[in-house]
Amino acid sequence: EVSPQENYFSREMLDRLSGKRTDKTWLESKHSDPDTVYLMFSKLNPMVSMPQEDDGGETKLCRFRYEAVKDLLQKPATVLIFLGVEKRKNPSSSSDAVQEPPAWFAIGSDEDAVELLKRCREKNFCFPKSPHRDLLKLNEEEAGVVAQARSVLSWHSRYSFCPTCGSSTSLEEAGYKRSCLNSECRSLQGVHNTCYPRVDPVVIMLVIHPDGNQCLLGRKKMFPAGMFSCLAGFVEPGESLEEAVRREVEEESGVKVGPVNYVSCQPWPMPSSLMMGCLAVAMSTDISVDESEIEEARWFPRQQVIDSMFKGSHPTFSVPPRQTIAHQLIRHWIGINSNL
Amino acid sequence: EVSPQENYFSREMLDRLSGKRTDKTWLESKHSDPDTVYLMFSKLNPMVSMPQEDDGGETKLCRFRYEAVKDLLQKPATVLIFLGVEKRKNPSSSSDAVQEPPAWFAIGSDEDAVELLKRCREKNFCFPKSPHRDLLKLNEEEAGVVAQARSVLSWHSRYSFCPTCGSSTSLEEAGYKRSCLNSECRSLQGVHNTCYPRVDPVVIMLVIHPDGNQCLLGRKKMFPAGMFSCLAGFVEPGESLEEAVRREVEEESGVKVGPVNYVSCQPWPMPSSLMMGCLAVAMSTDISVDESEIEEARWFPRQQVIDSMFKGSHPTFSVPPRQTIAHQLIRHWIGINSNL
Ligand SMILES: Nc1ncnc2c1ncn2[C@@H]1O[C@H](COP(=O)(O)O)[C@@H](O)[C@H]1O
Ligand SMILES: Nc1ncnc2c1ncn2[C@@H]1O[C@H](COP(=O)(O)O)[C@@H](O)[C@H]1O
Ligand SMILES: [Mg+2]
Ligand SMILES: [Mg+2]
Ligand SMILES: [Mg+2]
Ligand SMILES: [Mg+2]
Ligand SMILES: [Mg+2]
Ligand SMILES: [Mg+2]
Ligand SMILES: [Zn+2]
Ligand SMILES: [Zn+2]
Repeated sequence: EVSPQENYFSREMLDRLSGKRTDKTWLESKHSDPDTVYLMFSKLNPMVSMPQEDDGGETKLCRFRYEAVKDLLQKPATVLIFLGVEKRKNPSSSSDAVQEPPAWFAIGSDEDAVELLKRCREKNFCFPKSPHRDLLKLNEEEAGVVAQARSVLSWHSRYSFCPTCGSSTSLEEAGYKRSCLNSECRSLQGVHNTCYPRVDPVVIMLVIHPDGNQCLLGRKKMFPAGMFSCLAGFVEPGESLEEAVRREVEEESGVKVGPVNYVSCQPWPMPSSLMMGCLAVAMSTDISVDESEIEEARWFPRQQVIDSMFKGSHPTFSVPPRQTIAHQLIRHWIGINSNL
Repeated sequence: EVSPQENYFSREMLDRLSGKRTDKTWLESKHSDPDTVYLMFSKLNPMVSMPQEDDGGETKLCRFRYEAVKDLLQKPATVLIFLGVEKRKNPSSSSDAVQEPPAWFAIGSDEDAVELLKRCREKNFCFPKSPHRDLLKLNEEEAGVVAQARSVLSWHSRYSFCPTCGSSTSLEEAGYKRSCLNSECRSLQGVHNTCYPRVDPVVIMLVIHPDGNQCLLGRKKMFPAGMFSCLAGFVEPGESLEEAVRREVEEESGVKVGPVNYVSCQPWPMPSSLMMGCLAVAMSTDISVDESEIEEARWFPRQQVIDSMFKGSHPTFSVPPRQTIAHQLIRHWIGINSNL
């Protein structure tokens, strides 16, 4: 069932049904449907129940029904995103066929977080403070839903004015479009990306030493002590993935890269990146870091990487957690035969 | 020399030297350097010399020196983008080492196109009217430069106001950043994508029939008569490449897709997409097109595709030109053994 290309944040438990985004009647019937599931977001983070100290449980999304949120839906500052309907596990079963699967929506609210939390009886409900850490504790299915919702909400929070003319915009198509309210605006003639959510392609790459037995990892100043990760950077306009890998590696480490191979990708909803994971073969080995971005970069022998990832006690360094594509790229390399 | 991953628009003849974008002294010295090359754009299209009727030549970029454009550089409405410096063919040669390679800039001008053309003596110089056709006639190196320049210029032309607060913005970092002029704006606290050029990831895929010997091609109403191409669509927020392929194929043709494999990508500077080319294996074969987007979709037998691509006289259908990644994906599939 688990595909080798599946990374955290990439599972889709919902069918987005993009065709329904313009079907106002259908959407309205779903709004008040008692089976509909609402997720609540405050400052881009979802309300969750956190595992209690040392109960080792997982963080879970707090799911609301229409009755519990209908007042919020009336507020003009509320952003409402249609996420999709639950995918049928067993599409041929006859009982499913009668009833439509539940629809999911995300609510972006500007209400005070404390007020929003009062809607829940449970006291371990909260809005995570550090998404980079806390949003990695969901199960795979909920992580996928959060990836979609948080990316779209981030777009609305930063793109509420028309970049072409500076006017206000209105939210359309169930949260997937914003249209300029200035009827003279160029953005209304033809189709323009200014009206649609932004997704930023990023390359993240594990660079392999020409000897096939070492990999290049770097650390930023803000990383936890001892942690090293893959190099990464934004794809620039007019650039291929493979060229972006070569440029970013050379910029950040001074190492020249030859062949590049795509491995898998990861949506990263902070705010809305698409991390394209690659293996890259180095053509040179001298390291000279760009100090504005990277504090240190080093070649790590395969055995040292294996020891750090799998031997518990005293690793010489650490890598990012398994939910990151950086971790998965490193594991992928470890699984490949040595000496390319 | 030619890599299997190289598509039209993806060759990089310039080293972008992104570190120099903040080095005002260096940039200024390059502006007036007599070796510096300027390209001129009007309404996002570069000035070129078109091949004369039936001389079969290629379209070439018109290159200017500082003296010919310095008045334009003074105009406040002119957008100036640093593209990079020429890559050294032979980095170890000692004569090269003394002199820095020429820098290239793109000028986006709002002057009247007729006025701009008067700067040239030649009368076959012009600004292409249909970029989708005319920009495919450059050589590979110039196509790569145009991909970069046109994508960045498109961004400036649509994103001159701050999407976060609606204020005006100023151009910075040699054309790779726009900063909000409202000092209270949230976009100035921390790093936000609103300040950087937008690149839209798109999936484009050749879907293979479960029998391994047919591929799925579709046509839009606006295509030339008889032309069919790969299906394609924008990657949505919080979605992996592979999921985007499955979603778009099902939306546009009703066909369900299983395994997806990345092949190569193509920057497409109209305005600023990154086309991620994939092969996808169908799990179902019934076709039901989304008529708002696709006029017709069909399974084409391998032999019919080969005949249409390589036999001159009376093809039953046509595919897009070789400069498109759609064409290259189809060729790639033809080259793979039949019966997957
Ligand atoms: N879309 C974007 N979002 C955020 N930062 C960007 C973006 N594009 C370019 N940058 C710049 O890229 C830097 C990070 O470098 P890198 O990730 O290595 O490309 C940021 O500090 C920004 O200056
Ligand atoms: N970034 C974008 N730029 C332009 N159109 C977009 C974008 N994102 C979504 N769309 C919509 O996607 C449609 C094209 O469909 P597709 O290319 O199949 O995804 C356009 O007509 C727009 O309605
Ligand atoms: Mg970068
Ligand atoms: Mg970088
Ligand atoms: Mg980086
Ligand atoms: Mg589509
Ligand atoms: Mg689409
Ligand atoms: Mg499409
Ligand atoms: Zn506008
Ligand atoms: Zn602003």
